[in-house]
Amino acid sequence: MTQLSLQDLAGRIGAELRGDGARRVTGVAPLESAGPEQVAFYANPRYRRALSETRAAAVIVDEASQEHVPSAAARIVAVQPYVAFAKASALFFRELILEAGVQEGALVDESAQVHPTAAVAAGAYVGPSAKIGARTVVHSGARVLDCAEIGEACTLWPGAVVRESCIVGNRVILQPNCVVGSDGFGFALDLEGDGQGPMHRKVPQAGIVRIEDDVEVGACTCIDRATLGETVIGRGTKIDNLVQVAHNVKVGPLSLLVAQCGISGSTELGQGVILAGQVGVVGHLKLGDGARVGAQSGVSRDLADGETVSGSPAIDHRDWLRLSAALPKLADLLKQVRKLEKRIEELERR
Amino acid sequence: MTQLSLQDLAGRIGAELRGDGARRVTGVAPLESAGPEQVAFYANPRYRRALSETRAAAVIVDEASQEHVPSAAARIVAVQPYVAFAKASALFFRELILEAGVQEGALVDESAQVHPTAAVAAGAYVGPSAKIGARTVVHSGARVLDCAEIGEACTLWPGAVVRESCIVGNRVILQPNCVVGSDGFGFALDLEGDGQGPMHRKVPQAGIVRIEDDVEVGACTCIDRATLGETVIGRGTKIDNLVQVAHNVKVGPLSLLVAQCGISGSTELGQGVILAGQVGVVGHLKLGDGARVGAQSGVSRDLADGETVSGSPAIDHRDWLRLSAALPKLADLLKQVRKLEKRIEELERR
Amino acid sequence: MTQLSLQDLAGRIGAELRGDGARRVTGVAPLESAGPEQVAFYANPRYRRALSETRAAAVIVDEASQEHVPSAAARIVAVQPYVAFAKASALFFRELILEAGVQEGALVDESAQVHPTAAVAAGAYVGPSAKIGARTVVHSGARVLDCAEIGEACTLWPGAVVRESCIVGNRVILQPNCVVGSDGFGFALDLEGDGQGPMHRKVPQAGIVRIEDDVEVGACTCIDRATLGETVIGRGTKIDNLVQVAHNVKVGPLSLLVAQCGISGSTELGQGVILAGQVGVVGHLKLGDGARVGAQSGVSRDLADGETVSGSPAIDHRDWLRLSAALPKLADLLKQVRKLEKRIEELERR
Repeated sequence: MTQLSLQDLAGRIGAELRGDGARRVTGVAPLESAGPEQVAFYANPRYRRALSETRAAAVIVDEASQEHVPSAAARIVAVQPYVAFAKASALFFRELILEAGVQEGALVDESAQVHPTAAVAAGAYVGPSAKIGARTVVHSGARVLDCAEIGEACTLWPGAVVRESCIVGNRVILQPNCVVGSDGFGFALDLEGDGQGPMHRKVPQAGIVRIEDDVEVGACTCIDRATLGETVIGRGTKIDNLVQVAHNVKVGPLSLLVAQCGISGSTELGQGVILAGQVGVVGHLKLGDGARVGAQSGVSRDLADGETVSGSPAIDHRDWLRLSAALPKLADLLKQVRKLEKRIEELERR
Repeated sequence: MTQLSLQDLAGRIGAELRGDGARRVTGVAPLESAGPEQVAFYANPRYRRALSETRAAAVIVDEASQEHVPSAAARIVAVQPYVAFAKASALFFRELILEAGVQEGALVDESAQVHPTAAVAAGAYVGPSAKIGARTVVHSGARVLDCAEIGEACTLWPGAVVRESCIVGNRVILQPNCVVGSDGFGFALDLEGDGQGPMHRKVPQAGIVRIEDDVEVGACTCIDRATLGETVIGRGTKIDNLVQVAHNVKVGPLSLLVAQCGISGSTELGQGVILAGQVGVVGHLKLGDGARVGAQSGVSRDLADGETVSGSPAIDHRDWLRLSAALPKLADLLKQVRKLEKRIEELERR
Repeated sequence: MTQLSLQDLAGRIGAELRGDGARRVTGVAPLESAGPEQVAFYANPRYRRALSETRAAAVIVDEASQEHVPSAAARIVAVQPYVAFAKASALFFRELILEAGVQEGALVDESAQVHPTAAVAAGAYVGPSAKIGARTVVHSGARVLDCAEIGEACTLWPGAVVRESCIVGNRVILQPNCVVGSDGFGFALDLEGDGQGPMHRKVPQAGIVRIEDDVEVGACTCIDRATLGETVIGRGTKIDNLVQVAHNVKVGPLSLLVAQCGISGSTELGQGVILAGQVGVVGHLKLGDGARVGAQSGVSRDLADGETVSGSPAIDHRDWLRLSAALPKLADLLKQVRKLEKRIEELERR
């Protein structure tokens, strides 16, 4: 078990310790359950009460909140407390380790190139001419099809699928059962068909998916290959579970796509775009750098850099807040207007 | 093939037979397709016509509806007809059986503990130090990672993934390709990064998922492990397909989460909560016992016990019904108000 | 590499060539990236500028647009340009080929019937008494459980699951990690339970899924087996990723279900129905032939043939367009009406 003095811990995460630096801790924990050998953190005012009652050895906080930390606990003051917490947690975290090498029971084609420092578990599949980079872990049930390339230090969890010829960068994490490179939803309604009436003729999905470095793809998230060319997930973008990314979409770097959102074909997202949960975006749009879309919204027009929208169809976020406040009054408004009309009629009759 | 007399059947499902108890039946079927050797049931008034035309040997009904059963059919009268139907169907149902033991082609680590009465199919994976309880079935392609524990009489369908250290209770059903224990979507925006500009720093997802007894998890549903501590699915809760349960969520017992709904991080649901299809719930909320949320709604505030809400953002369900009826009148209302203003101007000019 | 003269290409796709028929091309590409040995196509006015700047050898267009093709490029004029493009792309497309036969490492039960021209990859599973038709490809990690039947010329991508006894027609494509035949979400709330208080009693899902010919099922899409009888996906219907099809749903032929939409239990869709992305449809409804539903809509009533609806709850599409335009004015309307009321009071006081 990792043990660190508070002084050492604060130093490693770039924070300032105020309190007993010699005290030793063995891990991080939430405010309400942290014991006297653990470090907690505070960032959300919802947990103010838990802060006042915590038994933690120390609390990671920002300058403004440090005065609320109970006196028995040390304060670890950071400009970005959540970042400091992430670093602290990483110091104690024990990742699941797989030994390097191809395990017995792994299915690796003889033409595949697996780096000697990579680990391929029993029940994992690496197809013909596929490449697995250094220190990458391919868990049981992950599948890398023909000619696909996986970079260095990636983790492919069970059931993650990378279809043929797709390209995955370095330090990419594919959560369980996500799909990279499924066919895009491309069909041409052919009124003639092949002599047996109308049909939806499949448009070959001849392109690939390219995932840049430091991307994470959530469980059961689907990223379709391009019809032609590439579907691209930019560097450092993080995708939550059950997200749909259609063919030929380009997602800029450092974006966040929250669970169950969906992006239709050929839409382009800039840098640092945030789509909240269950958002839908129409195809062939451009969402500018830093654009943000509120939960369950439906975006059907281009968004400018930094634009924040909500609603379905999505409108300016502040207008949506006003609309949301006004909506519950609509039914009464109808009644009120009916009454006003009668009063006007009465006035007109005078 | 199972054959039962109507008298025997009624007795086994705790219902009262009215009609020929000696008549024998071989199964259950819908009203419209049931033959003279089958039992149907009636609960939804939409199917009143099908009831009047059914050829079934007997119909399971409640007292109030029994008079509508055609005279040729026996009536099996139950206080809870749908429950009685469930029991009747179970009497005839032939589940897919796997022989106990580890099949050839199963991938079971030598440090795993598989109960001798459990069945592990070819192509299933049980990792180091994982435990599989008595009478549990692990189908081909299901994966149980290191140190995870599966209780007794569970069924893990193909592609179901239980990641490391997660705990699954007894009589739990994991439908195909569901994911238990994927990493939560936890990133701290680090403006400094590691010297190469801003990055989303991964917050280690060091906790687990704990699933209590009698839970069912739908196909492609994702339950994220906690950042710290546990994500919990309470006893007897049933989760449909493609549902997202984020890190540190607690779902109380006997809740129902319908397809494609999503619950954001750290939100707590009480007992018997119902989320209809495609609902979204914001993080860090508390939904009281028996709270119910209508389809496609977005919940952004705490809900009291028994509260029923709809809409996005969700409001009291009755208010939402009024709003929904009023909404289609809004465009006309705008016109009407414009006209009223003119009439007022006219009056003012007088 | 396939090489075709433009004359030959136009002939094979049933289009009319205007330009140098002897010129040879090696593939298709988007307007903006096509080189002088490639064919592009134009159908969406958004790409008018890319058309004017293309370096493609030829452009597939309709009669009305052919005048905008740059003079250096040949025109391939088609009545249905997108269909012609699909055919052209198919001429050059090199599908992933698996050699016929059962590969080493495939898990095929000895009672399964695999056609000698079918291909079963390493790590694929075909269970007891299952059938795999001629020329069908079962990729690594695809699972076909007991007694399921797969027709001819199908493709089952990695992680696709077909559960026991389900029936899949000919030329069906199952994208990665889709699920055919998961249990429907059927529970009867039993207030008595088994003596330990209320419980959700599982209703056996004793039916199957039947998928007709020429269907495509998207990645991580879930189609539940019927409670009794069949869930049916009609001939030529195409289903996108992450779609939920509940138990006993019938989808008519040639329908399109776009990503993340969901259909509740026992609902029936006619022929050529289109559900856009993230649509939800309530259970026990009938949607007529050619009905169309706009993105994110919620359908809670039957739809007539050809009816087009949008919104949640869904209303006539034109009414929804008016509503959407009116909604952002609601907050101001409330203010305006308040002012009008004051002016009326003033008039009344006179």
